[in-house]
Amino acid sequence: MSAERHASAPAPVTVIGLGNMGTALAAAFLERGHPTTVWNRSPEKAKALGERGARVAATPEEAVGAADLVIACVLDHDALHGVLDPVADRLAGRTLVNVTSGSPEQAREFTKWADGHAVAYLDGAIMTTPPGVGSPDMMFLYSGSEAAFTAQRQTLEVLGDPLYVGADPGAASLYDAALLGLMWSTFTGWLHGTALVGADGVAATDFTALATRWLGGAVSGFLARYAAQVDDGRYPGDDATLDVQIVAIDHLIHAAADRGVDNALPELLKATMERAKAAGHGGDSYASVIEVLRGERRAGVPTAAH
Amino acid sequence: MSAERHASAPAPVTVIGLGNMGTALAAAFLERGHPTTVWNRSPEKAKALGERGARVAATPEEAVGAADLVIACVLDHDALHGVLDPVADRLAGRTLVNVTSGSPEQAREFTKWADGHAVAYLDGAIMTTPPGVGSPDMMFLYSGSEAAFTAQRQTLEVLGDPLYVGADPGAASLYDAALLGLMWSTFTGWLHGTALVGADGVAATDFTALATRWLGGAVSGFLARYAAQVDDGRYPGDDATLDVQIVAIDHLIHAAADRGVDNALPELLKATMERAKAAGHGGDSYASVIEVLRGERRAGVPTAAH
Ligand SMILES: NC(=O)c1ccc[n+]([C@@H]2O[C@H](COP(=O)([O-])OP(=O)(O)OC[C@H]3O[C@@H](n4cnc5c(N)ncnc54)[C@H](OP(=O)(O)O)[C@@H]3O)[C@@H](O)[C@H]2O)c1
Ligand SMILES: NC(=O)c1ccc[n+]([C@@H]2O[C@H](COP(=O)([O-])OP(=O)(O)OC[C@H]3O[C@@H](n4cnc5c(N)ncnc54)[C@H](OP(=O)(O)O)[C@@H]3O)[C@@H](O)[C@H]2O)c1
Repeated sequence: MSAERHASAPAPVTVIGLGNMGTALAAAFLERGHPTTVWNRSPEKAKALGERGARVAATPEEAVGAADLVIACVLDHDALHGVLDPVADRLAGRTLVNVTSGSPEQAREFTKWADGHAVAYLDGAIMTTPPGVGSPDMMFLYSGSEAAFTAQRQTLEVLGDPLYVGADPGAASLYDAALLGLMWSTFTGWLHGTALVGADGVAATDFTALATRWLGGAVSGFLARYAAQVDDGRYPGDDATLDVQIVAIDHLIHAAADRGVDNALPELLKATMERAKAAGHGGDSYASVIEVLRGERRAGVPTAAH
Repeated sequence: MSAERHASAPAPVTVIGLGNMGTALAAAFLERGHPTTVWNRSPEKAKALGERGARVAATPEEAVGAADLVIACVLDHDALHGVLDPVADRLAGRTLVNVTSGSPEQAREFTKWADGHAVAYLDGAIMTTPPGVGSPDMMFLYSGSEAAFTAQRQTLEVLGDPLYVGADPGAASLYDAALLGLMWSTFTGWLHGTALVGADGVAATDFTALATRWLGGAVSGFLARYAAQVDDGRYPGDDATLDVQIVAIDHLIHAAADRGVDNALPELLKATMERAKAAGHGGDSYASVIEVLRGERRAGVPTAAH
């Protein structure tokens, strides 16, 4: 399949796995006029897509044979091998984009499998939920074969904003884990704050309007500033020092304790800041906390696979 | 001082306290042509502002007498009382906007002090660092006298975007604590992710470009959705359930452990999710975690003062 083809007519695609996410992916392709073939282990989930114009394949083999671009979105890597191992020969010469969640190690392992069967392989991570699929604002991360990314980019734009994060096939999964960790931290800090102001009668939606503005504005600005410090290995505390933050977090902890709000999270944050202070960073910025989070092994090969 | 006055000529203002933040506040007023009087305990900090056109008061009394609007930005509430108690009579009939950080209880206490001296009082919280002062994107929260806020709003716009968060004078401090808690959680989750991808050689600035887009886009969208669920007291897991997040956080914990990154934060987040699951929320959204963070006392008066 050539890149020129996309410019004229939407390229055929196959979607394997029609859970909540796979269904959303297939629907986005249909919506944009791509000839779309689908397959799911439980055939009933394909029905609605069939009514919307998808070709419903009876077997994985039929599905894989229907397009040069095959997108797999099943539960996990075991399910992926279960579906694709028997049809590996049929996949040869095609491009497989796997957006099933997994570890960086699993992505590297699957790349070897794909290489062994002459399949061009991209490992992907979807940074949204099904309702966000199809929006150019949403990030879809891909890693692995850059040639495959370049060739499929235009088709992948149907799903969201495709971002290539590196030739290491594990990169998309690693970014995924890191961004989800940021999300859970943010969620929990936000819920703690929501519980705090809620104790005094403030509605969650009122607080959250300020919280999202804070995150997208000032806090994002701090992160950009601190990221440069991390890369530089120096953390000047000329905007706000850890010493000052340690004093300020006590206001939060006291106010929350007064209102019966669970303080495990701010207590951990304070203890982490204090570890950085004990390591000599009291006069440095918050970015210096990375020094106590980082492991000994700063680069290279992980020690174990999962 | 009437609101009409602002429309014609910039109103005189006094700034008490010329640390990093007070200096930035005074500089913003000078920049916008406000006749600005300043005072600081250590007089040398007033010098540069004097050269830029500020009137440097020799005493707090002189400073307070120079404008109908007095802004105080000192270290803490003890310093505030130390400076203002002796000049309370001079403040009578004027408006005091206090942006010194403190607890909600301190704000309420200071309101009583102001009421007792016939001073119109607003308690404020500055949601930026000194370089952000003067930008209309930055949030300045105010609570207390709504009449004072309305009268001073136009002048306060010089510093940033003034937002009135309630008649309870403790509201600005409470929002401040809650938003800072969100910031520290976000910072630490971001540094954990930065350490994780950094172990595989990804630069902090590269990861952070995606992280800020993630926070301002998809994550802010999730917060808006979940805030409505919190207000509703129901947490349908139709986008992503806690059960699914608990599985996914293990990918993060394993990948970080492999790379020697400290996992105290994700372990706490996982344990918190598991408490919510144990309370029956496994099939609910992440918003249900608020049920295990919230105290018994859900509204009303705190039990102790700090
Ligand atoms: N939902 C999201 O918001 C989201 C976001 C980002 C990433 N993801 C990832 O996308 C993938 C799918 O998620 P989802 O939300 O669509 O999950 P889901 O609704 O639970 O669907 C799971 C899919 O996997 C299939 N499957 C499970 N075991 C299988 C097996 N042994 N052989 C063949 N097929 C098997 C299921 O087929 P049956 O219908 O026959 O059971 C179904 O199509 C997961 O890796 C998830 O982490 C999801
Ligand atoms: N910097 C920020 O990013 C930021 C952001 C939001 C809120 N704030 C809040 O703004 C306030 C000031 O912060 P800052 O950054 O300007 O701090 P700073 O640079 O340390 O300045 C502290 C100020 O307080 C004065 N002061 C201290 N003790 C005093 C006393 N007993 N009597 C009279 N004056 C006294 C100091 O006067 P001397 O010069 O004589 O020592 C100085 O003017 C704090 O409450 C802080 O939490 C700061």
